[in-house]
Amino acid sequence: MAQVQLLYVDGSVEKVDKESDAALQALRQTTALLTAAALHQQFDGIRLGDNQATDDGFFIDSDKDEIQVSADELEAIATIVKAFGKNKAKVEFESADLADAKALYPNDKFQQELFEDHAENGKVALFKVGDFTTIASGAVLNYVDVVKNFELLSVAGAYWKGMSSNDMLQRIYGTVFFKKDDLEADLVRRQEAKERDHRVIGNDLDLFFVDPKVGAGLPYWMPNGATIRRTIERYIIDKEVSNGYNHVYTPILMNLNEYKTSGHWQHYREDMFPPMDMGDGELLELRPMNCPSHIQVYKHHIRSYRELPLRIAELGMMHRYEKSGALSGLQRVREMTLNDGHTFVTPDQIEEEFKSILDLMINVYHDFDINDYTFRLSYRDPKNTDKYFDDDEMWNNAQTMLKQAMDDMNLNYVEAEGEAAFYGPKLDVQTKTALGNEETLSTIQLDFMLPKQFDLHYVGEDGKDHRPIMIHRGVISTMERFTAYLTEMYKGAFPTWLAPKQVQIIPVREDTHAEYADQVRNELAAVGIRATVDHRNEKMGYKIRESQTHKVPYTLVVGDSEVENEAVSVRKYGEQEQVSKSKADFTSEIIADLATYSREK
Amino acid sequence: MAQVQLLYVDGSVEKVDKESDAALQALRQTTALLTAAALHQQFDGIRLGDNQATDDGFFIDSDKDEIQVSADELEAIATIVKAFGKNKAKVEFESADLADAKALYPNDKFQQELFEDHAENGKVALFKVGDFTTIASGAVLNYVDVVKNFELLSVAGAYWKGMSSNDMLQRIYGTVFFKKDDLEADLVRRQEAKERDHRVIGNDLDLFFVDPKVGAGLPYWMPNGATIRRTIERYIIDKEVSNGYNHVYTPILMNLNEYKTSGHWQHYREDMFPPMDMGDGELLELRPMNCPSHIQVYKHHIRSYRELPLRIAELGMMHRYEKSGALSGLQRVREMTLNDGHTFVTPDQIEEEFKSILDLMINVYHDFDINDYTFRLSYRDPKNTDKYFDDDEMWNNAQTMLKQAMDDMNLNYVEAEGEAAFYGPKLDVQTKTALGNEETLSTIQLDFMLPKQFDLHYVGEDGKDHRPIMIHRGVISTMERFTAYLTEMYKGAFPTWLAPKQVQIIPVREDTHAEYADQVRNELAAVGIRATVDHRNEKMGYKIRESQTHKVPYTLVVGDSEVENEAVSVRKYGEQEQVSKSKADFTSEIIADLATYSREK
Repeated sequence: MAQVQLLYVDGSVEKVDKESDAALQALRQTTALLTAAALHQQFDGIRLGDNQATDDGFFIDSDKDEIQVSADELEAIATIVKAFGKNKAKVEFESADLADAKALYPNDKFQQELFEDHAENGKVALFKVGDFTTIASGAVLNYVDVVKNFELLSVAGAYWKGMSSNDMLQRIYGTVFFKKDDLEADLVRRQEAKERDHRVIGNDLDLFFVDPKVGAGLPYWMPNGATIRRTIERYIIDKEVSNGYNHVYTPILMNLNEYKTSGHWQHYREDMFPPMDMGDGELLELRPMNCPSHIQVYKHHIRSYRELPLRIAELGMMHRYEKSGALSGLQRVREMTLNDGHTFVTPDQIEEEFKSILDLMINVYHDFDINDYTFRLSYRDPKNTDKYFDDDEMWNNAQTMLKQAMDDMNLNYVEAEGEAAFYGPKLDVQTKTALGNEETLSTIQLDFMLPKQFDLHYVGEDGKDHRPIMIHRGVISTMERFTAYLTEMYKGAFPTWLAPKQVQIIPVREDTHAEYADQVRNELAAVGIRATVDHRNEKMGYKIRESQTHKVPYTLVVGDSEVENEAVSVRKYGEQEQVSKSKADFTSEIIADLATYSREK
Repeated sequence: MAQVQLLYVDGSVEKVDKESDAALQALRQTTALLTAAALHQQFDGIRLGDNQATDDGFFIDSDKDEIQVSADELEAIATIVKAFGKNKAKVEFESADLADAKALYPNDKFQQELFEDHAENGKVALFKVGDFTTIASGAVLNYVDVVKNFELLSVAGAYWKGMSSNDMLQRIYGTVFFKKDDLEADLVRRQEAKERDHRVIGNDLDLFFVDPKVGAGLPYWMPNGATIRRTIERYIIDKEVSNGYNHVYTPILMNLNEYKTSGHWQHYREDMFPPMDMGDGELLELRPMNCPSHIQVYKHHIRSYRELPLRIAELGMMHRYEKSGALSGLQRVREMTLNDGHTFVTPDQIEEEFKSILDLMINVYHDFDINDYTFRLSYRDPKNTDKYFDDDEMWNNAQTMLKQAMDDMNLNYVEAEGEAAFYGPKLDVQTKTALGNEETLSTIQLDFMLPKQFDLHYVGEDGKDHRPIMIHRGVISTMERFTAYLTEMYKGAFPTWLAPKQVQIIPVREDTHAEYADQVRNELAAVGIRATVDHRNEKMGYKIRESQTHKVPYTLVVGDSEVENEAVSVRKYGEQEQVSKSKADFTSEIIADLATYSREK
């Protein structure tokens, strides 16, 4: 098997298999290094930030204040990088005195700071290629002739060291492989992912935006996105209420003491926001989870076995601290609203309630036409039962019930021993995002612990106090993540019931058909349909194309014949055909469409 | 005119008119002092907290850990207080050394702490009545024979010094007047207010609760209250959307810098929550207002004059720091969700947009059957124009337009010169709560300043940049305050569309009529009506009475005759009559009822 020679950041070398992950990572790091060298060569005096390999490519940062690199210039830079390969350049290692290293770039505060950060005992490890020297940030290939199949993809902004209080730099992204086929497959995959990427679609359809200067990971839902979210929210609340859930609103702030009782402060602190000192001894905490809030609702009354299962649900806003580098569109955010619910049950009710929740989930997936998911049942590790909440009977009983329920419902599932939470077994419903990341769509988690921590009771048929079991469940996860997921699944072509604009009406001539267009719009609005008339001074063809670009489910064109016949000429999204219908027929059609949700017609 | 002699906390005396406010306050303080003395006499070793006159009575705190005072014991205590009056007791002033004062109550940490807090130069001002001595907290009547017309009203919990981190004490509330008639009128008023008090009704109907241990001023909306709130929220969003508002969701956290730009941090800081340091230089602030968020939405695109008026709306959650003593049920809270909206207009559009907002408001009041309100138009002070945002033409133009709009719409209003905000004129809609406090139900505020602070523009017809004007408006204020207001206005008898439970169905006999009852319930639920069947093992009469107590709009009784005739026996809330109807007729009736909202039928 072919091998390549790796040069490590301590100057040592080693041969590794060319097919190994280590070799690919080194290829990425090498290409990043060469791109930095190319920038250095192309732009005199450019100040360079970090250059790094990532999980799916590499990047190079540089200061954009004096020298701005545009996407048009990437090809010229790539040519220089290729030349290093053709000329069989070699990367050399050098251990330099910090002062000497800094003297290399007297006007580059970024390189100097990098050298300082990496210095040990006054020495810095450097890599050198041609006349370019920079910090060694990861193993590279000693001989760079294999750097052939790569592409510089894009330029975007990135904060120096990832901190929003620092300077904004420009970041060039790239991808590289040993084989040409692999590169081509990767570019196709990237193109597909881009077409589905909810951040791209979110921008094109004006669904949402995030501005790190105003708040990293804190999305603004524009009117279009807000309409989708509101429709989803009303749908899921109505569905849950009709399934016996009691929807509540609970505060997003709570005395920190409650999170000490729950254990979140001890075990989950680094994901929580800093507490706020209210000045009178009260420390308030933005909630990272809704369970302690729903426990307050449970505790507010003495509960009887007759009330169980007691289902408490909420669209609960929560805050979790994520590192700024991990934030992404609506998928990874710091403020989120969870479709959350907690059922309090007797031990006997676990199986039936579990089935009822599963039934609700499958029903909801069906309405959204979600078909690509898998079930994963997580048990405690039978060899390490002491690592879990201590109640053998409860565990055995519960795990058996969950498995039985899955079998009764004829569902396929994976069993994962040792993957349960400390406090109980769980079922996860897994799916994949457009970018290929696995994601949990729904979850059902049994919890034996919190009812004990908060000393919850119900009065049993025997008149005595008993401890309930708590079931945490989320059907469609957070509004943020679910909207991102749907945007990618539908490629932005939202089904009619979710589409921000359901009908776009285009008068053939503004002077003679605008009035009729408005009349059609008002009649549709009166039955709750989101319709607008395009009154702009643009050509009809342009208006029709734009309606398609915006993925409006129905485009109606109205001209003389439509006015005369009380009709509309209907073009459905993605279809070329334009069909003339009476207004009444079209209204019936769209109402029937709405009633099917996202399901295949 | 009759006079009374006041004894001040510095030991001086003065005669004042018996009808004066000072005399009434002293009467309240005297009765508080006497009640403290009575507690001291009745309960050996009781530890006493503060005793004070308030705006509508007085209170006395004491430690409940060792000696708990129940409501039953208030009469006995009142008898002792009356005896002081009958015996013509006199209050004496004494300036004591701090050490001597503390020695009076060696086992009472509260009295000792009060003495320390009030000491000046080692001396404490004390009042003495009989053998009881305590701190002088406000002027009293020298001769207590006028303490006759009073009542000790209730006992509740209160934190020592109002801080939730301190001990919980018990607080006795009382009221007192010079004249018997005044006392009686006050007791009637209190009874009426109690019947309307949203905190009392909220508890009786299980609408919400607040637990200061978990978070002061942070209400938990129980399922019943949440149903009312959700109905209001959907109503107002739908109403606004149909009026051309663009509803959005924006984050409740924002970089503190934005609140420096807006000026909130400089001028409103003490009402804001403490900023959170995110550790990477970012300071995040819980928003106290939504305007800067909606400005972000405006700024996200380049705006054209064709888009104006641009109406952005949200149910925006905000946080404001209120002192714990000021918090009250849903009326004064620290976390609230405002029915907020901001319209961006050209200077020419002010009048038309103002009318459109007023029209929406009046329409909404009509739907909720709100008739008791007044308009108040606030201008800048013409003598101090330099105290306001500097643009004379804008002020004159805008004030004229608002007045013109009110006149055009034939609305009565009060004009208040000098009551405008710094940044523009405004209209407030004022109403009164059950407890008689004036409250702002709605507001329309013009703002010339924020568009300048945030450098907002639109491209005019001339192709040049122009500055828009911002109109802040709230139609139904916060969900919290509006629900409190409606609860008091309806005395908890919510109209059908808002009632948490709209129909209560009672089978005459569980064994023979339960199935039919369930069938009726399911048929009603299928058309979106909130109906339940009372299957409990209780007498029918009891169930009917309870349905009335819970103010359920429709109580249906079903027995043999109803089963046979596919009918229901209907009793409306507040009526004695029970009318038999076919199921279909009843369904039509309730659907028609729902469509009228709260309006008089």
